[in-house]
Amino acid sequence: MSTRTPVACLRDHVGSTVTIAGWVHRRRVLKSVSFLVIRDRSGTAQAVFANPPDVTEETVVRLTGPVVATSQGAELRDPTVEVLSTADKRPPFDLYRPEVSAGLPVVLDNAAVALRHPLLRRRFEVAAASVAAFRRALDNQGFTEIHTPKIVATATESGSNVFQLDYFGRPAYLAQSPQFFKQAMVGVFERVYEVGPVFRAEPHDTARHLAQYTSLDAELGFITDHRDVMTVLRDVIAEMATAAGPDAPFVPEEIPSIDFAAAQELLTQHTGEDPRGEPDLAPAHERWLCEWSEREHGSEFLFVTGYPMAKRPFYTHPDPTNPTKSNSFDLLFRGLELVTGGQRLHRYSDYLTALGDQAGQYSDYLAAFAHGMPPHGGFAIGLERWIARVLNVANVRGATLFPRDLHRLRP
Amino acid sequence: MSTRTPVACLRDHVGSTVTIAGWVHRRRVLKSVSFLVIRDRSGTAQAVFANPPDVTEETVVRLTGPVVATSQGAELRDPTVEVLSTADKRPPFDLYRPEVSAGLPVVLDNAAVALRHPLLRRRFEVAAASVAAFRRALDNQGFTEIHTPKIVATATESGSNVFQLDYFGRPAYLAQSPQFFKQAMVGVFERVYEVGPVFRAEPHDTARHLAQYTSLDAELGFITDHRDVMTVLRDVIAEMATAAGPDAPFVPEEIPSIDFAAAQELLTQHTGEDPRGEPDLAPAHERWLCEWSEREHGSEFLFVTGYPMAKRPFYTHPDPTNPTKSNSFDLLFRGLELVTGGQRLHRYSDYLTALGDQAGQYSDYLAAFAHGMPPHGGFAIGLERWIARVLNVANVRGATLFPRDLHRLRP
Repeated sequence: MSTRTPVACLRDHVGSTVTIAGWVHRRRVLKSVSFLVIRDRSGTAQAVFANPPDVTEETVVRLTGPVVATSQGAELRDPTVEVLSTADKRPPFDLYRPEVSAGLPVVLDNAAVALRHPLLRRRFEVAAASVAAFRRALDNQGFTEIHTPKIVATATESGSNVFQLDYFGRPAYLAQSPQFFKQAMVGVFERVYEVGPVFRAEPHDTARHLAQYTSLDAELGFITDHRDVMTVLRDVIAEMATAAGPDAPFVPEEIPSIDFAAAQELLTQHTGEDPRGEPDLAPAHERWLCEWSEREHGSEFLFVTGYPMAKRPFYTHPDPTNPTKSNSFDLLFRGLELVTGGQRLHRYSDYLTALGDQAGQYSDYLAAFAHGMPPHGGFAIGLERWIARVLNVANVRGATLFPRDLHRLRP
Repeated sequence: MSTRTPVACLRDHVGSTVTIAGWVHRRRVLKSVSFLVIRDRSGTAQAVFANPPDVTEETVVRLTGPVVATSQGAELRDPTVEVLSTADKRPPFDLYRPEVSAGLPVVLDNAAVALRHPLLRRRFEVAAASVAAFRRALDNQGFTEIHTPKIVATATESGSNVFQLDYFGRPAYLAQSPQFFKQAMVGVFERVYEVGPVFRAEPHDTARHLAQYTSLDAELGFITDHRDVMTVLRDVIAEMATAAGPDAPFVPEEIPSIDFAAAQELLTQHTGEDPRGEPDLAPAHERWLCEWSEREHGSEFLFVTGYPMAKRPFYTHPDPTNPTKSNSFDLLFRGLELVTGGQRLHRYSDYLTALGDQAGQYSDYLAAFAHGMPPHGGFAIGLERWIARVLNVANVRGATLFPRDLHRLRP
């Protein structure tokens, strides 16, 4: 690689001749002087020309010339310009304007160029830093990273719709989560995590659902109950929050927690509705509870615990003091369910009872439990929802490089 | 979580009473004394009993008792035993024996319990450490991690077979690699990597092919040619090698490199065969070249460069001095192709020429190039092949938690 100075470092080279390389972010031609703003992964810098160079915006160039100090920092003066590749088409909107002037469909249809806008690019820099933080928090607590199959033989995990594929002439399905595999691997490593794609043939066309998303999954053994899982999750979220830099949300030392039934009472008292008897929270109720949490506890994060067993998956561990309730939780953040988790069943006999006639379908899954499994639990964080909430992106698609949904299979 | 001492730390607690928890790795009942060997994620430790406890191997237990020094370290004496969950079935082979006494099919069919064997578990600890090393090496060089779609609209990337799925009533395909997406993201981040599953409907039933594997993909812009990619790859491999601890292979400061045509000459001179004119290397020839590299250069790693354009994908950049040859490479390691990489085309017009009539099918992919892309290249490492070669596992399935192949879709 030829020597190249990051544009953000120009001011360290005042008085020298340097080479920079990047995209023509903006081109301005005035009467007596012209400017190119050059963008590389470090930022942007300006080059000044007596005669306007003949390049369009987004052309990839290499400039060599002297660095001169300016009131804002430093710029290149009359550098030589080498075109590395031309931009044959114009971007669908001006990438140099501070705000994104296009709507979401234009951005998504033109992701390869639209994401070059610094505001859009930043979402995915925060995503990368968030995933690194997730792993770092768990690595520090002795977790082992795993990679599990995304093609599975049976479509039995939950009520969600699954994608079916042709597997060498047989039907197979895309995994909706690594749930069964990560539980089995607690038997091997005690504490595991996986970062990977999960697939939902989600027929709902909402701002918070995707057909593929990145799931940050963790599972750990030798817990007392779900509260141990919540403690680990709180540390993970705190580490992930730092990834957002100046946008980092405040994560309290202890995230406030409300029991599901108590939440329903609150909603009944204060919203004029009566959700008691419902087995789950409606999106509007999640939003109300988040506002309540912020008002009452100063926390944008809120745990809801003790969901009714009726609405949780069969592997959920009941509350030993009240078996209609579960040792499960959701973590709400800024009005949205961000994380689901809880304690799982760990005894083989409990699985046989929970599954009844269906146990035969789950024989692969049950194998781990037949050989001794510790009390365990875990959680799954949706990466795109996290980014959307942290950076106030209205639609989760705006926090996905190339989203897939009911209508969108390209680019 | 109740306080628990890792069994590897017992010797730090001689004279105290501690609680340990784990699996009954082995149970031995002698005339006057009995032993339980307890396994947790830190290792194994022994507990000694006057009266044999009534637990089977793989039962999950919590033991509390005094720690006593022994000639080998420390052990628990007559602890109380609490059963956390019973092992209802016997493992398919004895997990406590130093070697794995079962063949590969038994291991794969019973992965949830078989992988508890310390020798098998270690493969995946090295895998986790290798992936962490891959990311660390690239993070240190300013790469950004990305997550790209695994469901794609067209089955056009290469000659390999693809899996077709039903995407809300339309046909779609599982991505064979993140190739197109990672190239497009060079336009946004300059340097990107992705760790994720890739899918090949591979009809060959060999020891080195899987229907799903974990691909460690990287791509970087502003290169001079493929040699810049090889330099980055060498540093990545060196970092990954350290993950294997005592099994770390030696990675030379500069990995030896041989031109494809020169390799064919060598093979013709020394093997009694004449592969000249063939567009690729046969597996036997890759093995021979690795032996040659070790003998001549003291390196188990060997780059082969300058493969004929005829056999490389359309996005491969030709050698400017000889357009029938490519700026591509394979990295061979212990007889096997471990990595494929090279420089890619970066000019829109070059893609239009290379694709000809087919350009329309690739419009999504070409979008990035129409808007200015720097010279770039990258590589992809197969994680399971890496682990298999580093730890001398004969079949790549033995380096996969739950492999998927022509015949295997479970567990």
